[in-house]
Amino acid sequence: MARNLARKLIESHLVSGRMVAGEPIELAIDQTLAQDATGTVVMLECEALGITRVKTQLSAQYVDHNLIEADFRNPDDHLFLQSACRRFGVWYSPAGNGVSHPVHMEAFGIPGKTLLGADSHTCAAGSLGMLAIGAGGLQVALAMAGEPFALTMPAIMGVRLSGVLPPWVSAKDVILEMLRRHSVKGGVGRIIEYHGPGLAGLSAMDRHVIANMGQELGATASVFPADAAVQHFLAQQGRAADFVPLTAEPDAGYDEVDAIDLSTLEPLIALPSSPDKVVPVRQVAGRPLYQAYIGSSANPGLRDFEVPARMLAGRRIAPGVSFEVNPTSRQTLENLIASGALMRLVEAGARLHQTGCNGCIGMGQAPATGRISLRTVPRNFPGRSGTEPDQVYLCSPETATASALTGEITDPRDLDIPVPRYEEPVRIIINRNLLQAPTQGGEAVELVRGPNIKPLPEFPIPGEHLEGPVLLKMGDNVSTDEILPAGVAVLPLRSNIPEISKHAFQRIDPDFYERAIANRPGVGFVIGGSNYGQGSSREHAAMAPAFLGVRCVIAKSFARIHRRNLINFGIIPLLFARDEDAAAIAPGDVLHIDAPLKQLASGQAVCLDDLSTQGRFLLRQDITAEELTSLQAGGLINRVRQKLLTGARP
Amino acid sequence: MARNLARKLIESHLVSGRMVAGEPIELAIDQTLAQDATGTVVMLECEALGITRVKTQLSAQYVDHNLIEADFRNPDDHLFLQSACRRFGVWYSPAGNGVSHPVHMEAFGIPGKTLLGADSHTCAAGSLGMLAIGAGGLQVALAMAGEPFALTMPAIMGVRLSGVLPPWVSAKDVILEMLRRHSVKGGVGRIIEYHGPGLAGLSAMDRHVIANMGQELGATASVFPADAAVQHFLAQQGRAADFVPLTAEPDAGYDEVDAIDLSTLEPLIALPSSPDKVVPVRQVAGRPLYQAYIGSSANPGLRDFEVPARMLAGRRIAPGVSFEVNPTSRQTLENLIASGALMRLVEAGARLHQTGCNGCIGMGQAPATGRISLRTVPRNFPGRSGTEPDQVYLCSPETATASALTGEITDPRDLDIPVPRYEEPVRIIINRNLLQAPTQGGEAVELVRGPNIKPLPEFPIPGEHLEGPVLLKMGDNVSTDEILPAGVAVLPLRSNIPEISKHAFQRIDPDFYERAIANRPGVGFVIGGSNYGQGSSREHAAMAPAFLGVRCVIAKSFARIHRRNLINFGIIPLLFARDEDAAAIAPGDVLHIDAPLKQLASGQAVCLDDLSTQGRFLLRQDITAEELTSLQAGGLINRVRQKLLTGARP
Repeated sequence: MARNLARKLIESHLVSGRMVAGEPIELAIDQTLAQDATGTVVMLECEALGITRVKTQLSAQYVDHNLIEADFRNPDDHLFLQSACRRFGVWYSPAGNGVSHPVHMEAFGIPGKTLLGADSHTCAAGSLGMLAIGAGGLQVALAMAGEPFALTMPAIMGVRLSGVLPPWVSAKDVILEMLRRHSVKGGVGRIIEYHGPGLAGLSAMDRHVIANMGQELGATASVFPADAAVQHFLAQQGRAADFVPLTAEPDAGYDEVDAIDLSTLEPLIALPSSPDKVVPVRQVAGRPLYQAYIGSSANPGLRDFEVPARMLAGRRIAPGVSFEVNPTSRQTLENLIASGALMRLVEAGARLHQTGCNGCIGMGQAPATGRISLRTVPRNFPGRSGTEPDQVYLCSPETATASALTGEITDPRDLDIPVPRYEEPVRIIINRNLLQAPTQGGEAVELVRGPNIKPLPEFPIPGEHLEGPVLLKMGDNVSTDEILPAGVAVLPLRSNIPEISKHAFQRIDPDFYERAIANRPGVGFVIGGSNYGQGSSREHAAMAPAFLGVRCVIAKSFARIHRRNLINFGIIPLLFARDEDAAAIAPGDVLHIDAPLKQLASGQAVCLDDLSTQGRFLLRQDITAEELTSLQAGGLINRVRQKLLTGARP
Repeated sequence: MARNLARKLIESHLVSGRMVAGEPIELAIDQTLAQDATGTVVMLECEALGITRVKTQLSAQYVDHNLIEADFRNPDDHLFLQSACRRFGVWYSPAGNGVSHPVHMEAFGIPGKTLLGADSHTCAAGSLGMLAIGAGGLQVALAMAGEPFALTMPAIMGVRLSGVLPPWVSAKDVILEMLRRHSVKGGVGRIIEYHGPGLAGLSAMDRHVIANMGQELGATASVFPADAAVQHFLAQQGRAADFVPLTAEPDAGYDEVDAIDLSTLEPLIALPSSPDKVVPVRQVAGRPLYQAYIGSSANPGLRDFEVPARMLAGRRIAPGVSFEVNPTSRQTLENLIASGALMRLVEAGARLHQTGCNGCIGMGQAPATGRISLRTVPRNFPGRSGTEPDQVYLCSPETATASALTGEITDPRDLDIPVPRYEEPVRIIINRNLLQAPTQGGEAVELVRGPNIKPLPEFPIPGEHLEGPVLLKMGDNVSTDEILPAGVAVLPLRSNIPEISKHAFQRIDPDFYERAIANRPGVGFVIGGSNYGQGSSREHAAMAPAFLGVRCVIAKSFARIHRRNLINFGIIPLLFARDEDAAAIAPGDVLHIDAPLKQLASGQAVCLDDLSTQGRFLLRQDITAEELTSLQAGGLINRVRQKLLTGARP
């Protein structure tokens, strides 16, 4: 079978394993990235790993999440990261420089390379023909140490694009159509490869939009070929020399296939509070608007601001609507100033915010109680906006802007204004001045540690038996935003595990922390539904439960990154064999697993006793041999520490 | 004696009283303003007063403080304010439109008018020949109801300006020189009137800088004549018709006099953590910088951004310095875009923030632990930046920018670059599109109340005796930032007195709240030093102690606005006759005042017993007859409520 692009990328980086879907493989990692909310722990882990200088071709650290700086904690984290970059040989992108994913794509993306990032939307770089994967911070730290990245070989889903997008329909509508078709679980265990003649009409940044929200499908990665659009993009960024053409072999096959005729698409919108609750905009047109929001890694391109600016030229947003403009990067801001777009946006009534993730990660811009917010961001999980309950809809910049003009949800086709014309410019302003290149710092560079930057807690070696109460039982599609929220109150605690643990599961059950703390030093179980742990890659969503004594999560299925994070911090992820087994276990039931590590090592189903009901269940497991070694050590940190003592490979 | 300008302004608005310094007077109020952190309570008070439509010539409500919007509370407050503006006939300036004081000056300032504002920096409008005074929210609400404003006739201090500012020295250095000479108490009980030939070189916005920080001197107001500079300013703002020439009579006399030869000034800087710890910049030059910050109501003019932009053109800020640009208003932003200044700032490495008060009021931009921040803001009280302890220095935009270029505190004269040339333009972009004019709403407009907007608590009628413990004893110059902090955690609670009270005095004593709550329903005393309650006008610094049972504050002296706020909420402010009396009273001592209202009514010294030490003291009092009626009612709210019942004048 002719090789598709995803297989070519994997094959060229395969360190171990067979390229058969479902089998464990290891990949060599060329580049890594982290943002500040995940990066502090990544750097602490690098320190624990004894890294003197990263062994990747390139590693970059961005400051884009914790930009509010309500007190010393955010800025202390930034100083710490800056010093760690000097020490370990990492690029540092300071606050104000922009959102990690588009900045990385612009400054560092190279077709054919692998990128592992401590942020779930790392997958956006698939737009350039990279194999870009989000992971827990500890795995990124290991990649920085030169270790290969272990994962399960995904199935490759080929999506053939044909036709041309109609007026007022853009890349965001393509990925919303994918979410409508496949749901937030549809990409689990898969790489999604886009191909076909429809690609010709999609710029590299359009593809970024689609690849970015591949994460919302649960996909391991999304890949696009490195073709003329990528060549144009790299030339535009002053990096024509970095272009490498890269496509699937002719007549390449795929494990699964789908096809979208772009010309049939219409403006789509995801209803509260899941990215896959997608309907045509017209179906919900007329609902009154409180806020419209453009920007974020899910619509970061110049066009995503230039098109709204053209729509607004000489017009005014509806009174009472807050129209929030979040420039992607310093470079974006400069280009919008130079082109006149920024002036048009501000004149029309836009509220201009600092460059960065901002409201997309709950750092400000929360909507008012019960009011509708239309956003171009990738996620609308409950409460992620900062307001609970919230009413966040996801849509294209065109739909957000049209709605801001009328004051109600509006299909842009129903505005009586000319279709804005936008062509990707050949030349743009390039500003990478503030990116700080790695220096020859090494161990001479002292890490700058503020008082909120605490050492990682100890994670215990598992005992002979696992016995304890069900601390919490949840439904399907619980996201890491619900397991451990982001936002203004919680993000500044990312360097302080005991403190951040007070927020674990607080959205689902405000009493969880008290109950879990009271149960310590005993161990606890948590029960999830299907797609447990979707969303952000935050390893704190595993570290906090681990700190609170959770040693086993049983669910119907797991999201990839979170499952691995659980293992990394010594929590065993197990699967219900039948849905009715989940129904038979109640919160508070005391569960018992005899010799769990032995059972896992056997490769067989794991036997679980519910001591409260005398029920007995067989649980499925999919723990690989490599993962088992982490669980045996009480987590990957411990395993790495053992390695440091013995000199063996971690 | 020929009349000075201040006396002319007072005389033309005098409702009652004699114009003798120290005597009670009442003034007619033409205009009012509030910002969102004080405005929600102002509007609740308007509602309690039964206002159907404001009786001022103009009232305006700005949203500039609570812009982070971490959750529903900030945006809910904004919706509430917008609905209240429609109901009561008030101009509404939404989030993103800019900082209240400069926007008010640009859009509404008229020479010869009185302005009362629920923000201590309201005094900035003295730059236009207005009599502009900051006050507690309740007094602003009464002014909106058409009531005159009661105050003590201030002494008038005439400050004669001569000469021309040298290169690199600007208006900020003038007011820093005043603070160096007179301290944060030097203006108490005074209006500061600037006159003389040196005015010719100061634009209206330069005068705004000086008038704004008159509040840091403790002055009741600062006034400047309405001369050619004001005429130019109003013409620039498209309001030439609003100009009214207004100056002191020739050879006017003053109660006190001072003089500054502008040509002798040099760049000055206020050290942490008081605006009057002023030294020449060169004295502290070389200290390493973490952050440089331009913007705020204390340096809001176009020149305050254009001059830094010219200094930075083609240059780059020092690596590691965070250079924070906070545009004053939407109009400022548009002019900076159009002139090219914004591009120069961003290219040089500026981090551009949304328009508004931002870090000046502790809403973000906190410096890192132990690191130096240079700011053009008016205040550097301890912890106001959000970081405790902090290292905030106050200086001109020139000094902040020079220091950002070198990475250490730098006198701009020591930079080897040309002096930037800036002339006030004749024409600028004017954008008042987003100011929402009062409508004929009236009682038909329903107030939009989010779940965090709570009714004001009840304030009790005082009992026959006042007896209770000293809950807290403090030193000199305690600011309202220490009595009740602002910042990200506290500002969103401004509409919720029980919740915000948990933060009362937390900077000084984290146990205060627990102690005070435990003491309830008993009453408590608080002991202050001199200039007690300086700083922001926030009436929550009186409401929260009142809610916690504080019924009497004894201090060496009071800042004007806070003293009045105490009375408004039923707390008796009394004065030590001798400093040694303060020393004789210890925290925890049980104090007793027999028949306090009767003693106050007598006009005599008030007798205080320290039951713990058997000590007896005579305390000075300066309660006016009008103030006494508020204390008798348990505060102005109660007095107003009684008025509503009886139909009498409040």
